[in-house]
Amino acid sequence: MKLREFLALLDSISPFELQEKWDNSGLQVGDPNKEVSRVYASIDLDSETIEWLEPGSVIVTHHPLIFGKLSSLSYDSYPAKLLVKLIQKDIAHIAMHTNFDKTHLNSYVAKKVLGVEPRCEEFVCLFEKEGSFDEIVAWVSQKLGLVCPRVVERKETIRTIALTTGSGGSLIGSFQADCFLSGDLKYHDAIKAKELGIGVIDIGHFESERYFAQALREQLKKHQIEAIIAPIKTPIKVWNETVH
Amino acid sequence: MKLREFLALLDSISPFELQEKWDNSGLQVGDPNKEVSRVYASIDLDSETIEWLEPGSVIVTHHPLIFGKLSSLSYDSYPAKLLVKLIQKDIAHIAMHTNFDKTHLNSYVAKKVLGVEPRCEEFVCLFEKEGSFDEIVAWVSQKLGLVCPRVVERKETIRTIALTTGSGGSLIGSFQADCFLSGDLKYHDAIKAKELGIGVIDIGHFESERYFAQALREQLKKHQIEAIIAPIKTPIKVWNETVH
Amino acid sequence: MKLREFLALLDSISPFELQEKWDNSGLQVGDPNKEVSRVYASIDLDSETIEWLEPGSVIVTHHPLIFGKLSSLSYDSYPAKLLVKLIQKDIAHIAMHTNFDKTHLNSYVAKKVLGVEPRCEEFVCLFEKEGSFDEIVAWVSQKLGLVCPRVVERKETIRTIALTTGSGGSLIGSFQADCFLSGDLKYHDAIKAKELGIGVIDIGHFESERYFAQALREQLKKHQIEAIIAPIKTPIKVWNETVH
Amino acid sequence: MKLREFLALLDSISPFELQEKWDNSGLQVGDPNKEVSRVYASIDLDSETIEWLEPGSVIVTHHPLIFGKLSSLSYDSYPAKLLVKLIQKDIAHIAMHTNFDKTHLNSYVAKKVLGVEPRCEEFVCLFEKEGSFDEIVAWVSQKLGLVCPRVVERKETIRTIALTTGSGGSLIGSFQADCFLSGDLKYHDAIKAKELGIGVIDIGHFESERYFAQALREQLKKHQIEAIIAPIKTPIKVWNETVH
Amino acid sequence: MKLREFLALLDSISPFELQEKWDNSGLQVGDPNKEVSRVYASIDLDSETIEWLEPGSVIVTHHPLIFGKLSSLSYDSYPAKLLVKLIQKDIAHIAMHTNFDKTHLNSYVAKKVLGVEPRCEEFVCLFEKEGSFDEIVAWVSQKLGLVCPRVVERKETIRTIALTTGSGGSLIGSFQADCFLSGDLKYHDAIKAKELGIGVIDIGHFESERYFAQALREQLKKHQIEAIIAPIKTPIKVWNETVH
Amino acid sequence: MKLREFLALLDSISPFELQEKWDNSGLQVGDPNKEVSRVYASIDLDSETIEWLEPGSVIVTHHPLIFGKLSSLSYDSYPAKLLVKLIQKDIAHIAMHTNFDKTHLNSYVAKKVLGVEPRCEEFVCLFEKEGSFDEIVAWVSQKLGLVCPRVVERKETIRTIALTTGSGGSLIGSFQADCFLSGDLKYHDAIKAKELGIGVIDIGHFESERYFAQALREQLKKHQIEAIIAPIKTPIKVWNETVH
Repeated sequence: MKLREFLALLDSISPFELQEKWDNSGLQVGDPNKEVSRVYASIDLDSETIEWLEPGSVIVTHHPLIFGKLSSLSYDSYPAKLLVKLIQKDIAHIAMHTNFDKTHLNSYVAKKVLGVEPRCEEFVCLFEKEGSFDEIVAWVSQKLGLVCPRVVERKETIRTIALTTGSGGSLIGSFQADCFLSGDLKYHDAIKAKELGIGVIDIGHFESERYFAQALREQLKKHQIEAIIAPIKTPIKVWNETVH
Repeated sequence: MKLREFLALLDSISPFELQEKWDNSGLQVGDPNKEVSRVYASIDLDSETIEWLEPGSVIVTHHPLIFGKLSSLSYDSYPAKLLVKLIQKDIAHIAMHTNFDKTHLNSYVAKKVLGVEPRCEEFVCLFEKEGSFDEIVAWVSQKLGLVCPRVVERKETIRTIALTTGSGGSLIGSFQADCFLSGDLKYHDAIKAKELGIGVIDIGHFESERYFAQALREQLKKHQIEAIIAPIKTPIKVWNETVH
Repeated sequence: MKLREFLALLDSISPFELQEKWDNSGLQVGDPNKEVSRVYASIDLDSETIEWLEPGSVIVTHHPLIFGKLSSLSYDSYPAKLLVKLIQKDIAHIAMHTNFDKTHLNSYVAKKVLGVEPRCEEFVCLFEKEGSFDEIVAWVSQKLGLVCPRVVERKETIRTIALTTGSGGSLIGSFQADCFLSGDLKYHDAIKAKELGIGVIDIGHFESERYFAQALREQLKKHQIEAIIAPIKTPIKVWNETVH
Repeated sequence: MKLREFLALLDSISPFELQEKWDNSGLQVGDPNKEVSRVYASIDLDSETIEWLEPGSVIVTHHPLIFGKLSSLSYDSYPAKLLVKLIQKDIAHIAMHTNFDKTHLNSYVAKKVLGVEPRCEEFVCLFEKEGSFDEIVAWVSQKLGLVCPRVVERKETIRTIALTTGSGGSLIGSFQADCFLSGDLKYHDAIKAKELGIGVIDIGHFESERYFAQALREQLKKHQIEAIIAPIKTPIKVWNETVH
Repeated sequence: MKLREFLALLDSISPFELQEKWDNSGLQVGDPNKEVSRVYASIDLDSETIEWLEPGSVIVTHHPLIFGKLSSLSYDSYPAKLLVKLIQKDIAHIAMHTNFDKTHLNSYVAKKVLGVEPRCEEFVCLFEKEGSFDEIVAWVSQKLGLVCPRVVERKETIRTIALTTGSGGSLIGSFQADCFLSGDLKYHDAIKAKELGIGVIDIGHFESERYFAQALREQLKKHQIEAIIAPIKTPIKVWNETVH
Repeated sequence: MKLREFLALLDSISPFELQEKWDNSGLQVGDPNKEVSRVYASIDLDSETIEWLEPGSVIVTHHPLIFGKLSSLSYDSYPAKLLVKLIQKDIAHIAMHTNFDKTHLNSYVAKKVLGVEPRCEEFVCLFEKEGSFDEIVAWVSQKLGLVCPRVVERKETIRTIALTTGSGGSLIGSFQADCFLSGDLKYHDAIKAKELGIGVIDIGHFESERYFAQALREQLKKHQIEAIIAPIKTPIKVWNETVH
């Protein structure tokens, strides 16, 4: 299969035209006329990941490396330095971002990772789960493997929960829920949530979207393609004095 | 002193025209012709803070409540519900945001809180401090009272440190430093920092800017005005299972 | 009925989504969860009107108080000073502007006030009425109670008349009529009308739209709601030397 | 003198580069290489004025005929029909609008017509004149020949007056004065003025700017050019029932 | 037939609403209420053409004279000087540009001039024609009467050819063809074509679109209107030293 | 010397900040920290040129490869395919476009190639040269080696000539000259020139700017850097039937 045909296959799984207009999902780097050999899947790409990949392969990630206007390929700037490495190792790179959020990722995380039955629309999945705030935090932390999650506490019992994998802070106020699970929690969004009476649990941008690799592999399997999940670690660590 | 004259005094301390064009520093709520009685200072305002303030007073905060277009004062939306409470208690509200960042806050935190001698320009203060990454994290955590800070680790020795109080992620790549101290660390900024070889310590948006109140009080004292520091807590807590 | 439900009722009478994109019809001030007691209707709000209203009530006006970007609630600026008074008296305020123009107001004025049978489309109602220009001015003045109306004279007989309540000058040239009835007549629009051979009678922005209150009351009656028409006077007076 | 040189002379009297960026002052119609014979001055141009002008002449007006984008010269549209008439009679047309407002017109009307000594800046002239509102209206009406002027009344004594010839409603709130003299008074500007405690007298767009012709003639005389004042009447009449 | 009715007839042949949004097809100059006498057709208008036309006639061209914003009718500027001549000779001018490209011109040139059977969509017609690049250039040059055409050579055999009359360089890369026929070939578009392996033959903007006159005449004949083809020459000559 | 230092040297020769805001002069591809070995200069880059260049070198061109937004590095698109080749051969690429036009290129071509003494400002050089149009075409063709140049003829004697290397058509009408020398002549610009009485000789975009390489080499020599002029041919050929 040529890269061009593989792109068409991905488009049939999650149409690229569903992406938001500020997004850049699709082919990032690569020769559409080259034969696709090995296929990798990963939430993202960094230098270590590229080091690890086999030359001549293709990697499908959630986030596109080219975001915003690219006017220079200076080797000491980001993301140019990674694009250069991909070209040097002859690795193709495709991104499936907001289109895949809408068609698969949110509901995958809700169903397969949290084990709930959600009602999903655009970027938000809603589901019922009753408990104290502490109970919900404990449950989510265990399900997603969170360490010292940052939270906006809510005293009253939680009944309805909203989930947006990745970075969903700007959505606060646009849905009805007692608690919001999303990543990249910012201070001003936390104030807003608190004033609107909505609890928040920062489930991590990486921690909530790393399931992209599994979700995509599951889809590709239906087309007899065995995607390899590329190893990647979040650049963010929670610093715990006692450990050091 | 009338509110109008108090505004002029603040302008002489940190000219409002220095604010960024997307900012909204200045009078948020209040009657310019009313006599100013009690003056409060705080990084921000929330419902509890307003509850605590005395009617008829004025509060100067770092962040403006009105940000972006305000097209409705619906009592169940944010920030309208806080603006309504201020009006009901007849409390005036003034913000000194990016103008004060440039003239006072960054260098205040560097000098008075971290105890270093920085070179400051616009939103970034640079200073020298040698140590391993772990030593720097320990030192910063102790100085700013951080709990489980999120970090992007850097193996090599730190020599030059950059500081931007508040939310400085978009500045990564625009300065030369081994380690960056700022708040609201986002996942994609963390990837960029890691790829550029810059360590990051998330010092918290709230935790790094709460010194606004002290910095402003210090300035007002020179004009024989005794500002009261309003109590406020960050809405974000680090959830620690063992505690619960 | 809660304010939220009253808004939904108004939306069923004249959908807010019909408003022009530069408009700001909808909730201006108020708590959606509060019980609606007394309902007022008026073309507009000024200090005297607010003085007159009962605390805790809701007033529906034609023009929204919040127009354009509101970046400060300074008590000495307009419209902030009126918004502040509404909040202090706990009065809710809703605007039904260009949506109501399209669904009700233009045709109401044509039918109920002028007593004609118009063909209405968007912001213009057309109807037949034959007479000399002087006869038409006399007829309109009597119907609408105009004093010394400003006119652009047309020598030939009038047969077709166009009506746009409020301020319709920018529409001149976009319809076929011998005479145009609208308010806020500007000098350059008058030149244009004269050169295109269209007579104009300035029927007043206030004078032609004050019927908003009656038109809305008529609609609310069908839903068993008795709206009280709030007293308001135009700020514009025609100065007549002999009177003084 | 060629038209090109006459334009340069006008530019030396009131530099065209002082015009506002939305303005279109300068050559509207004409051959820069043609000899200028007769020179006319007028606030504006209409069909009757063009009829009256001598072929081959040049007319300088306050308002430009070409305003906004001109994409068609259809003889039945405005202002194309007037441009066509100018070309057919070989008459050149130059506009001196916001540049002349700033350099001459406002202060000319204040000094020569109202007989006061103003302080002028950009589009506003301020001067002192004490009296009751009625006295001020009577005085202005007599000076400018106003019939039934529309006013926003102010109860307290007038001391400081602001003047903007033409259409100055958008400036309300940007200056400190008890009473504002300007033309084209719109209903919403009237509400704003009333709420801010500023009286307004609508002195007419035409009535306040027709002095353009005299003011320009005065300047041209210094350069030995005798401008003829073209006759023009306002298209707006105040309809007085008793007269008809 | 009045000019207004003639416009409606042209609209029925090729709807003006099909034009691109940056285009200005439609009435350029003329009185919609005047009787149409003689009708001319031409790709364009220049001074000599206008000289040649009979007063009181109407000319339909491919390119509109008014393109972009017209803010002055200075007789020494282009296109104002031509608009002035049209008005002085009382000649109406209508343009049928991108609407006619889409409905008639491209396919007319392909079928009637090149004698092929194309598949046309928007601005591009595709057809099959096998031959070496030199054979194709010779064939096109003979069909269109080209002298020393500028070309981007392609070594391999041509099979599929794309045609865009006028100036189609920006379309390179948006269609699949071995060779592109279009006018106004620019250097950077030539580089792009060469790198993408597409041959280009510059068939001239004028040389490829002068058939507008015939194509329109053919359509008008169906409505019993005999259009006269106005004589016009391209301003561009190929300079051949030996001739001089 | 590192690439970073070479960039600084080029900036001292022709400051990059002088470039137009739509331009993208500066580093296109390359590692700022790598040692610069061989330096090439050329008007442009194509596949053959890159083939010819030595790995690890740097090439300075007039036109930047990255123009407009680059959102994908698909190997079958232009200019991505050339950027990919540069990276694969580890060749750095720097562009000096509109900054170099202003500081060197225009005047270089006028003085060193045409042998005249021009007055240059921004993108236009003016000089005196008397002769018939044919004489001027012959002289220019000989100096620049033009074959069958396309021209807009002018009958009267030429005295003042304007020169803009590259593509200067949009400048027609902004300067006073009898004849204009520039490349990429478009049909509509030719009509405009003819109507304004300006002769035009299309001196070729490539043919007039290929001197970039010499002009830059001359400057670099002053800094003891020997630039090699890379071979490149224009993609545009004039097709002459007799030759084939």
